[in-house]
Amino acid sequence: MAYRATEKTRAAQAERREVLLAEAGNLVAAGGFSAASVKAIAENCGVSVGSVYSYFDGRADLLAAVFRRGADQELNEVRMAVAEHSGAADRLRALVETFARRAIRGRQMAWSLLFEPVDPRVDEERLVYRGSYVELTTAILRDGIEEGELPEQHVGIAAAALIGAISESLTGRLSPVPVELPETFSDDDIVDAILQLCLRAVGFAA
Amino acid sequence: MAYRATEKTRAAQAERREVLLAEAGNLVAAGGFSAASVKAIAENCGVSVGSVYSYFDGRADLLAAVFRRGADQELNEVRMAVAEHSGAADRLRALVETFARRAIRGRQMAWSLLFEPVDPRVDEERLVYRGSYVELTTAILRDGIEEGELPEQHVGIAAAALIGAISESLTGRLSPVPVELPETFSDDDIVDAILQLCLRAVGFAA
Repeated sequence: MAYRATEKTRAAQAERREVLLAEAGNLVAAGGFSAASVKAIAENCGVSVGSVYSYFDGRADLLAAVFRRGADQELNEVRMAVAEHSGAADRLRALVETFARRAIRGRQMAWSLLFEPVDPRVDEERLVYRGSYVELTTAILRDGIEEGELPEQHVGIAAAALIGAISESLTGRLSPVPVELPETFSDDDIVDAILQLCLRAVGFAA
Repeated sequence: MAYRATEKTRAAQAERREVLLAEAGNLVAAGGFSAASVKAIAENCGVSVGSVYSYFDGRADLLAAVFRRGADQELNEVRMAVAEHSGAADRLRALVETFARRAIRGRQMAWSLLFEPVDPRVDEERLVYRGSYVELTTAILRDGIEEGELPEQHVGIAAAALIGAISESLTGRLSPVPVELPETFSDDDIVDAILQLCLRAVGFAA
């Protein structure tokens, strides 16, 4: 019986941690990491600040967990979209379009995941996820070269360049402080401009 | 006479601040922001930790000042290189080559300026400098389109993409944790691969 009680307690704890994480995620999606204070999370969940700290090893640990959750979801969506296509051009298109469209739709979260100045712990997670995107892109380019769709090139460098290009070119559209993009430029135009640039960069005919 | 004394005091203070900043810069260039502790700076300059804090509003303020100094120097070198050339292709080449070659030569400093996880105050400075590089690149692309060297494109997006591509593709070579780049790939090969990719991306013939 004692064993069962422990299991139950653990499940309840995991569930409470989950609730706190989900609320922190909502706050980040609405106002960025800066809006996800432990105080706000505690208040919105009806618990004490001390109780939040009993589930996380400080605010940086909590934000890093929120980051991983959000970044995992994005990475999975992009991976699934890529897996639905074949051929380097179509897979690259799926990668760029999924990444960019989802970022534009969930603007604040995308800005926070990609660029918001935040604790170095989160920055460290960012470098890991960028590595995952570069790996995914490397595999696409390698296949493209093997199949004769793409010219020979250093795939590691090209893949890193594409991920840098996609995320940096989205900054203007994502930044909470709007950058000088003409109003007449629609979200579709932006995604298309990024896509064409990426395709040209690795050697697909324009 | 009192006026003169104040002026002298100010000059002496500015000089001492300068010495601390220079030493902090040396530590960052050798081991990254993480190596530039206030304790190490104080010890190397033969002053007390408290004395360092009398010149800076905390460690983040000091690191942000080191960042601005390092980033200013890089930006100026790139601007000067670009100004020495005419025509979009040659100016873009000057930008990419100067940025990349200097980053590879001063690897640890470049990694710290571009990517090292660090206080959000420094991250905020990073966004500002990226903006300056994007502006410089935008001007080059705009001229290239006007002169008929480049096809019509959204210059703001393309410029941001190029800056993202250049910095991200350098990560492998800059990272203190080496990434999977073949040893046979020289620094020149890397700079050339990045350059070719950037030229193709904006529509110069490969």
